[in-house]
Amino acid sequence: MLTIMQITDWKISMTAATILAEAAAHPFDEALALRPVGEGVYEGVPSPRYWNMAGPFGGITAATLLKGVLDHPALRGRPLAQTVNFCAAITPDPFVLKVVLERDGKSTQHWSARLEQAGQMAANATLVTGPERETWAHQPAQPPEVGEASSVPVFDTAAATAWFAQYEMRFEHGAFGQEQPSQTGLTRAWLRDRQPRALDYLALASMADAFAPRVFLMRGVRAPAATVSLSTYFLAGQAELSAQAARPILGSAQPRAASQGFHDQTVELWSDAKSLLAVSHQLVWFKD
Amino acid sequence: MLTIMQITDWKISMTAATILAEAAAHPFDEALALRPVGEGVYEGVPSPRYWNMAGPFGGITAATLLKGVLDHPALRGRPLAQTVNFCAAITPDPFVLKVVLERDGKSTQHWSARLEQAGQMAANATLVTGPERETWAHQPAQPPEVGEASSVPVFDTAAATAWFAQYEMRFEHGAFGQEQPSQTGLTRAWLRDRQPRALDYLALASMADAFAPRVFLMRGVRAPAATVSLSTYFLAGQAELSAQAARPILGSAQPRAASQGFHDQTVELWSDAKSLLAVSHQLVWFKD
Repeated sequence: MLTIMQITDWKISMTAATILAEAAAHPFDEALALRPVGEGVYEGVPSPRYWNMAGPFGGITAATLLKGVLDHPALRGRPLAQTVNFCAAITPDPFVLKVVLERDGKSTQHWSARLEQAGQMAANATLVTGPERETWAHQPAQPPEVGEASSVPVFDTAAATAWFAQYEMRFEHGAFGQEQPSQTGLTRAWLRDRQPRALDYLALASMADAFAPRVFLMRGVRAPAATVSLSTYFLAGQAELSAQAARPILGSAQPRAASQGFHDQTVELWSDAKSLLAVSHQLVWFKD
Repeated sequence: MLTIMQITDWKISMTAATILAEAAAHPFDEALALRPVGEGVYEGVPSPRYWNMAGPFGGITAATLLKGVLDHPALRGRPLAQTVNFCAAITPDPFVLKVVLERDGKSTQHWSARLEQAGQMAANATLVTGPERETWAHQPAQPPEVGEASSVPVFDTAAATAWFAQYEMRFEHGAFGQEQPSQTGLTRAWLRDRQPRALDYLALASMADAFAPRVFLMRGVRAPAATVSLSTYFLAGQAELSAQAARPILGSAQPRAASQGFHDQTVELWSDAKSLLAVSHQLVWFKD
């Protein structure tokens, strides 16, 4: 997030002004454009540039719901947790996003958000935000052992769905579309926006869903599948995201179990300094 | 869940009738008692027998919110995913629980639930339910390597908070209250209700929160901490839960990272036949 002070400072420099202009033109920011029409009420249109097979990419929907909170005048602090439920197909038509501050506490603010089309809820979310504070810190999780991004070739997304081509992915393990079934369903990859963009919470919310349904890997076939519910915890402060800038981050994705037409999967998003920026979990529906 | 047919069948047998009577008297079922006062609207009172330090045990609140959905006349199928947000302190006073079926689809039903006290929301939830269907299944996750329940001593909860004494826990690793800091923050334990009760989705929803905040283990001190948001995926069908009956299940709990006053943790709940019944993730607030 840019504060007014930062924007004012930046305006001194022509270079910085150019950066701002470019940032505004980024496809990700254009896709997240919301027009406020009341307190916590916005209008928007799904971006064709982040279209998936039969609706918007889930990550862009998650980022849109988060954006509604980040744009809310009552916000203090940064995102901590977000759960998005994908309730029905989202069409290319305009939507209304309604954000409500449900409870406002010292350590946390609790929000709900609803994305509606034609008066019906298509996706909803609960979100928790809170002010940053310095505390004891510890990281038991181990980062994936992967060579530097430059050592892993960029995956060809020329023939991919629109959203996928917006990302630059370098698969070290478990590439999208491989045909041999994978017992583990594991993917490790470097990723960033194809058009470079400084990392922020909106980007993390979206990238948390950038790893294909694990059923594709586990079965070695691409049958219909869709995220049902997606929960992301933002573990890093703004300073860490700023330090990462637009360089590729390291992601891993792994399922635990599939049965009765659903499976879970967990995505970890690491900085290139090996700090866990976010962890995300989702339940995926799949067609048998 | 018992269907009317099952209940009718059971009434033939005096033994079964006794089981039903005992089940009704279980502290867990008494704690979850809800009085319907409209479609999807219930009144209830937090149970002192599941009280924690400064409010009800989070697991019993999660189970209460789920119960509101399971009691709803429009429900088809079984729980798939639940996210509970703990928004404010819950007092011993009566509460109103409001459950809304937000979208009703073929594969999934999407619900929201709000627990209110004195007209203010204290906790909310989004829930996904769906009909069972037999499909391809696969379990990449590995169960914790733990000896049989009978080989692990029962943890003494005589001096514990009320809710903790409702469970029988056998810690194989990372017992509650140990004073040496644990680098991993890992716990592995067998658990069941102290007064035996056949496993169901309500029990899983509650047990998913039965592992202490990992910060207690990582720091070796018991400073104030509280769950902020809790997401549980129910991966097993009813038949698997019925097969488990009242025998102890195997749980593991592990954090990934702590910083800025919050940490995540993941709980896996396994059947004694080594099938992953549920996986749950939460974000925990802690005092520095």
